[in-house]
Amino acid sequence: MNSSFHPFSLSCRKYGKFKKDIEKYLKAMSGRGGELMLETGKVRTPIILVNFKTYAEATGENAVKLAEMAEKVSIETGICIGVAPQFVDISIIAKKVSIPVFAQHIDPIGYGSYTGHVLPESVKYAGAVGTLINHSERRLKLADIDAAVSRAREVELISVVCTNNTPVSASAAALKPDMIAVEPPELIGTGIPVSKAKPEVVTSTVEAVKRVNPDVIVLCGAGITNGDDVAAAIRLGTRGVLVASGIVRAKNPYKVMLEFAEAILKA
Amino acid sequence: MNSSFHPFSLSCRKYGKFKKDIEKYLKAMSGRGGELMLETGKVRTPIILVNFKTYAEATGENAVKLAEMAEKVSIETGICIGVAPQFVDISIIAKKVSIPVFAQHIDPIGYGSYTGHVLPESVKYAGAVGTLINHSERRLKLADIDAAVSRAREVELISVVCTNNTPVSASAAALKPDMIAVEPPELIGTGIPVSKAKPEVVTSTVEAVKRVNPDVIVLCGAGITNGDDVAAAIRLGTRGVLVASGIVRAKNPYKVMLEFAEAILKA
Amino acid sequence: MNSSFHPFSLSCRKYGKFKKDIEKYLKAMSGRGGELMLETGKVRTPIILVNFKTYAEATGENAVKLAEMAEKVSIETGICIGVAPQFVDISIIAKKVSIPVFAQHIDPIGYGSYTGHVLPESVKYAGAVGTLINHSERRLKLADIDAAVSRAREVELISVVCTNNTPVSASAAALKPDMIAVEPPELIGTGIPVSKAKPEVVTSTVEAVKRVNPDVIVLCGAGITNGDDVAAAIRLGTRGVLVASGIVRAKNPYKVMLEFAEAILKA
Amino acid sequence: MNSSFHPFSLSCRKYGKFKKDIEKYLKAMSGRGGELMLETGKVRTPIILVNFKTYAEATGENAVKLAEMAEKVSIETGICIGVAPQFVDISIIAKKVSIPVFAQHIDPIGYGSYTGHVLPESVKYAGAVGTLINHSERRLKLADIDAAVSRAREVELISVVCTNNTPVSASAAALKPDMIAVEPPELIGTGIPVSKAKPEVVTSTVEAVKRVNPDVIVLCGAGITNGDDVAAAIRLGTRGVLVASGIVRAKNPYKVMLEFAEAILKA
Repeated sequence: MNSSFHPFSLSCRKYGKFKKDIEKYLKAMSGRGGELMLETGKVRTPIILVNFKTYAEATGENAVKLAEMAEKVSIETGICIGVAPQFVDISIIAKKVSIPVFAQHIDPIGYGSYTGHVLPESVKYAGAVGTLINHSERRLKLADIDAAVSRAREVELISVVCTNNTPVSASAAALKPDMIAVEPPELIGTGIPVSKAKPEVVTSTVEAVKRVNPDVIVLCGAGITNGDDVAAAIRLGTRGVLVASGIVRAKNPYKVMLEFAEAILKA
Repeated sequence: MNSSFHPFSLSCRKYGKFKKDIEKYLKAMSGRGGELMLETGKVRTPIILVNFKTYAEATGENAVKLAEMAEKVSIETGICIGVAPQFVDISIIAKKVSIPVFAQHIDPIGYGSYTGHVLPESVKYAGAVGTLINHSERRLKLADIDAAVSRAREVELISVVCTNNTPVSASAAALKPDMIAVEPPELIGTGIPVSKAKPEVVTSTVEAVKRVNPDVIVLCGAGITNGDDVAAAIRLGTRGVLVASGIVRAKNPYKVMLEFAEAILKA
Repeated sequence: MNSSFHPFSLSCRKYGKFKKDIEKYLKAMSGRGGELMLETGKVRTPIILVNFKTYAEATGENAVKLAEMAEKVSIETGICIGVAPQFVDISIIAKKVSIPVFAQHIDPIGYGSYTGHVLPESVKYAGAVGTLINHSERRLKLADIDAAVSRAREVELISVVCTNNTPVSASAAALKPDMIAVEPPELIGTGIPVSKAKPEVVTSTVEAVKRVNPDVIVLCGAGITNGDDVAAAIRLGTRGVLVASGIVRAKNPYKVMLEFAEAILKA
Repeated sequence: MNSSFHPFSLSCRKYGKFKKDIEKYLKAMSGRGGELMLETGKVRTPIILVNFKTYAEATGENAVKLAEMAEKVSIETGICIGVAPQFVDISIIAKKVSIPVFAQHIDPIGYGSYTGHVLPESVKYAGAVGTLINHSERRLKLADIDAAVSRAREVELISVVCTNNTPVSASAAALKPDMIAVEPPELIGTGIPVSKAKPEVVTSTVEAVKRVNPDVIVLCGAGITNGDDVAAAIRLGTRGVLVASGIVRAKNPYKVMLEFAEAILKA
């Protein structure tokens, strides 16, 4: 069976008005890890990772449209934007857009008798390049997070383990995922950004993860709704944001994503 | 958003050598409920429902090929064959074949903040016409089975609740699913057919379900590997079989499905 | 190993001011099932079943005091009051009081390798005569409810399966527990009594359970805080109430239990 | 409410034939951490921690007898032996023996509406001094392990987090439990000791845990049946063993525990 990669083209078709910002950014990032994951062909940091959840605005045809908007912003700004649609929408979205597609979850299983489970190989073949693991709405047992991260590594899916606080982030870092996204659950969906309400959670997570495993990239999420929140997240030491309602349920998701990407360019 | 139905054509393109058997069968079934679910456009009983699990032989491209074989047998024999592939494979299979496609599981949720869950609307839009619920490899809490059956009804997915014994089948019948598939878990994957090893489980389930709710269709599964097992299942009062390894992992799945369908025609 | 029963004495030590009411009640109940479960030595209906949850007011020494108050009311009024303390408090309470003690949960397991689980035999030996199963705060998978009810039967624990609505109650009735306690989860802990806010849930549950299995006794719960609510529950056809905060967190639990018992006597 | 401690007397009533060994051991251990946890009044390392699971041989009266045997061996040898009985047996055992009693599990909850859950405060009041968390037969979600360890700390219960391999042990160490017990699940109950079959799992766990958090004490378990296995565990760098069937299901548990304790004294 053949996995179908859709490599992200760095030579974006048009930079538009952000050309200068992008060139400045690429220059500034050189040697600072910004190209760290280029070998996967798709995912670079800083990243804006958009979790589609099961929002009506991000289901079926709407999911495709939203992914296309994300691609547009990514091409215009040069900033990597990933999308995490529902399982059944992965293959159609991965075929339509060049930006990286993530699953929202994988099960720590292999081929076999696992009715109703999400096989890592399957999401890979469908065109995903990565996956969330242990999102606060889909928490896993510790041993299963370990197994899921291992399985992701085996099938070459980028693993993004979601965590709720600093000790749990340190704990997750010991399992050697590619990324950790810390999201205080009490802020998810509130519009109160973690980068403002609990900046110490972000900075202490960045430090704790670095101490356990400096290779793990830290994102943060919860309550992020505008460019300031994103810029703050970057300034606090993260390499991007995991965001859902702030983009998906926005009146104009394109505009919000553009604002987020510009904020990163200027951060 | 528009759900895309792929109605099953009863005027199958070619009946082949089974033409007489099929005519006899349709005549015999008339008035006996065989057409009960015609209104859904796809699912008729008796039915052979093939659970793809996460078998390598039924993942990605292999899943498409297997579904096409199932369609071929269905067209040649007139017997309804449904397939239950993994979530990510639903949309491509539903586009390629005219036979009914089932999800292996849905979550009892609606639109909203349910990262990593399976939204009933999404599997419907992807082209599924039904779903397994509570498979022995994906057991649900009682209140969640009730909610999942309700959600399936709301989005017009045919619900097939899997059960492990007679009392649980009676219990599930009270929730008014469309079908119940009883599978003694100790026989799953063994090749020892429930219809021979535990015929009393099948007959007592048929009776118990009828007593609670005569509208619920009973299937049986576990250990079914040849036409005799299928014929026995029908004779014991079921309206079809739920089968996985017996077909998916067979050397020649086409041949086995054909044998199953013929067995039903002659039962 | 010897289970230590503490049989409830019907010849209560003192009837107090309710002597007449009790005599009238016993007369009225004779032949109406009120004595149905006398063979267990402890549990009669109508019953007030008090769920201690993990409330501070019902933990450790407080749990013992509360159970003693319940016993006092039971002796004074002749009404059966059961208590469901936490696991670790069962044995000391069962030794101190003569009223029936219930576990809050059992696991569907037997002797063996089940670290951290609740063995039905153990709660029996500790002196419990019954157990809640599938409380809304401890939902179980359908197959596990079936297995837990069977295990309760095997070790002669009275099983009280908690349910959230009418279809689930009918479903649970098919598993043949001794009792079903229907509690709309949205009303639990609110002080809005199910018997007033959703009387139709109670009456339709009573009817649905009777249709599936007339031997199953129906209780109701959620939001019950005064005698009127209890009287309403009885009038709607239940044989008692399952109650937690309404008694446990009351300023004067003794007084509230007395009010509940009097309401039953007068219902 | 008053928690009732039963402090372990180091001036054991009789040392018996091991007097010299014990004096030698205490001397050797001084300054090496052996007294690390004396402040809890009960738990010292090296420790033999006996998990009673739900074995018939360790339920109810049998549980009390087994705990008394463990106490006898502990007094005779000076080696700390802890017992982890079922929830309902904690209080009676904690009253009868002077050795440390552990719960098999706690839930990450506080006072409130948690029917059927295990409140840390309650096991503490019942006389437990510690608790297993995340045993392979009672795995928890990562965030819940974090919360359970925190809750144990709040109520001053010694936390022993069970793990299945080296990365998960490192992960658990980041949550700062008092102890970690690594048990390869495939060896549990086999009689094939981890200290022989997978010594590298033990040594790499000891190292990995030390790197993340040198304060965390490492035990090992799975398949330990005789003194040699215990001695090997100590030599590999652990501070004790977690053992179940090897002791509980032995023909003569007293003799086996004595052999284990002697092996530690001589290791």
